[in-house]
Amino acid sequence: MPALEELRKRLGEIHDLGRAASLLAWDERTMMPKGGAAPRAETLATLARVRHEMFIDDRIGKLIDEARSEVDADAPPGESIDADLVRVVGRDWEKARRVPSELRAELARASSIAENAWVEAKERSDFAMLLPHLERNVELTRRFAECYDGFPGFSRTYDALLDEYEPEMTTEQMRVVLTELREGLVPLVAEATRNGAGAEDDAFRGEFPADTQRELIRAAISELPFPDDSWRLDPTEHPFALSIASSDVRLTTKYDEANLAVALFSAMHEAGHGLYEAGVDPELGSTPLSNVRSLGLHESQSRLWENWVARGRPWLEQHLPVLREHFPAAFDQVDLDGLERAANRVERSLIRIESDEVTYNLHILIRFELELEIFEEGLPLADLPEAWNARYRDYLGIEVPDDAHGVLQDVHWPGGAFGYFPTYSLGNVIAGQLWEAAGRDLGDLDRQIADGDLVSLGEWLRERVHRHGRRLSPTQVLERAGCGELSVEPLLNHLRDRVTLAVQA
Amino acid sequence: MPALEELRKRLGEIHDLGRAASLLAWDERTMMPKGGAAPRAETLATLARVRHEMFIDDRIGKLIDEARSEVDADAPPGESIDADLVRVVGRDWEKARRVPSELRAELARASSIAENAWVEAKERSDFAMLLPHLERNVELTRRFAECYDGFPGFSRTYDALLDEYEPEMTTEQMRVVLTELREGLVPLVAEATRNGAGAEDDAFRGEFPADTQRELIRAAISELPFPDDSWRLDPTEHPFALSIASSDVRLTTKYDEANLAVALFSAMHEAGHGLYEAGVDPELGSTPLSNVRSLGLHESQSRLWENWVARGRPWLEQHLPVLREHFPAAFDQVDLDGLERAANRVERSLIRIESDEVTYNLHILIRFELELEIFEEGLPLADLPEAWNARYRDYLGIEVPDDAHGVLQDVHWPGGAFGYFPTYSLGNVIAGQLWEAAGRDLGDLDRQIADGDLVSLGEWLRERVHRHGRRLSPTQVLERAGCGELSVEPLLNHLRDRVTLAVQA
Repeated sequence: MPALEELRKRLGEIHDLGRAASLLAWDERTMMPKGGAAPRAETLATLARVRHEMFIDDRIGKLIDEARSEVDADAPPGESIDADLVRVVGRDWEKARRVPSELRAELARASSIAENAWVEAKERSDFAMLLPHLERNVELTRRFAECYDGFPGFSRTYDALLDEYEPEMTTEQMRVVLTELREGLVPLVAEATRNGAGAEDDAFRGEFPADTQRELIRAAISELPFPDDSWRLDPTEHPFALSIASSDVRLTTKYDEANLAVALFSAMHEAGHGLYEAGVDPELGSTPLSNVRSLGLHESQSRLWENWVARGRPWLEQHLPVLREHFPAAFDQVDLDGLERAANRVERSLIRIESDEVTYNLHILIRFELELEIFEEGLPLADLPEAWNARYRDYLGIEVPDDAHGVLQDVHWPGGAFGYFPTYSLGNVIAGQLWEAAGRDLGDLDRQIADGDLVSLGEWLRERVHRHGRRLSPTQVLERAGCGELSVEPLLNHLRDRVTLAVQA
Repeated sequence: MPALEELRKRLGEIHDLGRAASLLAWDERTMMPKGGAAPRAETLATLARVRHEMFIDDRIGKLIDEARSEVDADAPPGESIDADLVRVVGRDWEKARRVPSELRAELARASSIAENAWVEAKERSDFAMLLPHLERNVELTRRFAECYDGFPGFSRTYDALLDEYEPEMTTEQMRVVLTELREGLVPLVAEATRNGAGAEDDAFRGEFPADTQRELIRAAISELPFPDDSWRLDPTEHPFALSIASSDVRLTTKYDEANLAVALFSAMHEAGHGLYEAGVDPELGSTPLSNVRSLGLHESQSRLWENWVARGRPWLEQHLPVLREHFPAAFDQVDLDGLERAANRVERSLIRIESDEVTYNLHILIRFELELEIFEEGLPLADLPEAWNARYRDYLGIEVPDDAHGVLQDVHWPGGAFGYFPTYSLGNVIAGQLWEAAGRDLGDLDRQIADGDLVSLGEWLRERVHRHGRRLSPTQVLERAGCGELSVEPLLNHLRDRVTLAVQA
């Protein structure tokens, strides 16, 4: 058997175990009876360990080496699937074998336990309840980062963390982008919130029974370019999307019966993630090339559908009749201008996932800076709530009343996902660039959306972004889509339009 | 590391992959979008292959040998978990390594193809369409059985088939039990159906919205001795129960809006399976001892809760007010006598899964006898419909109008599951014995159930049956529960009572 063939077979097995792990993770957060929590943590740990051991096997390394001579190793990315596979898997393997299996398993186990503790800690707004679990997560993550001492391209602790979510992007590159963003954002937020925008009645607030919300949202997702019978939508505490296969996408949302915007826009967000997973080239099948790894690119898809599409005037124009049909009391007296303003309020707020587009990236910035302090400046975790609250005061001018509305709001740190947050802002930056390019390529995109045509945009994104899987890096995707280099200007321009709208209100 | 410790660690990993496979199987039949079917089949095949390869590893065999000297190998079953583990796993390992992986794969592939052909063959009632696939299944199953030539305890072809579902029970033992059962049943069925019982109005037929059924059934299952937050109930096409862990039990049912009995009694049936899985000693944890393997014992638990409890007068007495509350139109005019008769109708019928308690075992007997003829007496498969119809005439006094209502009705043979059917009847026999013993031990069991106390019975079953997992064989369980040897008399006595009830109608 040629090396490449055996390599593909072995990677396929690992990929299938990954599918099982994805289902276990989805089930844990949507379906599992509480009693299943402890054994579930064990099962996830075992799967992580077995997959890891199968992958770091010396035989895989040998096969990668041999396969290099079977493919055109000099082919530029995107030209040969085989060459891309060998290149991408080669780096994965070099990275993976640095981390002992037991540490991987322990990370999986600890974060599963911490996530369960977090649910209760958040309910009670009791940070002390989470603290020991968080300390364990940070200690294990630190040990994880230490495994990469001297790894090519890594020069500081956070590089190893970021690389898990945004491969081949350094902390310094991220810092530059986020600093440019902050410089544009701070005056923009000040302007937007200066004269009390958001005081107006908000059509999305009122009484919205969850069952009717679900019906409305299922219909909205059905209009997106998903193949038939390839997705489902379930409620959960902290919305997410994942796929068991490209034809088996799991979307989740959270229903707030007093605020329709929560579920509606988060569902469109998760659907954007889902469309990405659904759009990966089937030829990449059971190889790691189909596991989308740049969370920045992934987030660009979710934010694009949530913010550029669903909060845009054309989509709202098309959906106002649907909103009125499901919730006449809330929307019968609202016109398109009012709806657009309601969908694009700018407010200094406490909760990231409920925050508006303009302030959102400040929430991210706070988390990114705190992560750097934890891992590179020794911030004690016991001081985290205070550090959190201080930054919300400084950047957003807002007092955090309790930890449930502060440091306990996100699942990421209990889940052990340090280095994840900045990819959200990177996603916004990339979405801004892709939206501009799509508009240039597709002509009157606004008209298409107002006419209910979401397929043209979907196809454009599939062709330019989704289908490549991990074959291209975010910068290569941007360049080939005609977006040039990474730039915050398209996002800032977009947000300036949003602010103009808010200030008019 | 002592051999036993390493053995436990390796078995634990295989066990956890089994949990993942269980979740994949549950999800496939309850939650999965249709688009996920093809990748799901691949994922399940990979998990089966990886688990099999991990298990038949020479290292496991060596560890089993070494562990034998670390445990008290002469300890009688049930005395030492370690000794039981080594004994049970030793036999599993000897069995597993006899079958070449290619044959296992071919069996899986052929039965998957045959199942698809069966769906169409059944729709068209065209046995000839299924015949070549059935021939392939039988040929492969024969080769599977040949792998066990000379295996300790096996003396004939069918022994190897039966052992897959009912470990350590021989064909001859099963034949003796089922023949005794037949001799008691044939005259009983003749008596029960002589004067057209079943003509009366059936309170369970009418209009029963699925949502209300679900509410009623959830409440009924909540009364069973499950720990809190350890189970869930979902709709599916063919009801089943499985557990991801003993504290994470998944029950399913199917709602027929014209017939409440379908969901109600099948849910109680699956809950019986679920209680068994929930009741395994937590000490057996992630070892194969906690994988209940005797389908006869398993079925004894489902049938006991479905038939002895839920179709019994005390349970019906306690639930008549609940039935009236949920479905006043159907039950307000029904008294307890009428309800009891409706829950226990006896009819000669063609379809096994719709048949009543009294006739049910004759359906099983027919299948068992035909399997023996196929594998041990060379019955040509082309003659199977004729042989089937002849037996339905002889045992049930009923003419089979077409193969869809005859030999094509069950998925087991297309699915390659030869040797499975007799465990259904074995389960009924065991349930009858356990019910008698529980009644002796618990005093007035009828009174307890009528008072809503299901915990006493549940605890008795957990102590005598569930907690042992695979440590004891069915005959050992029966003996230690004070039931003596395997005997059909308790079941026949129970069915005689049912017939008396039916004849009074």
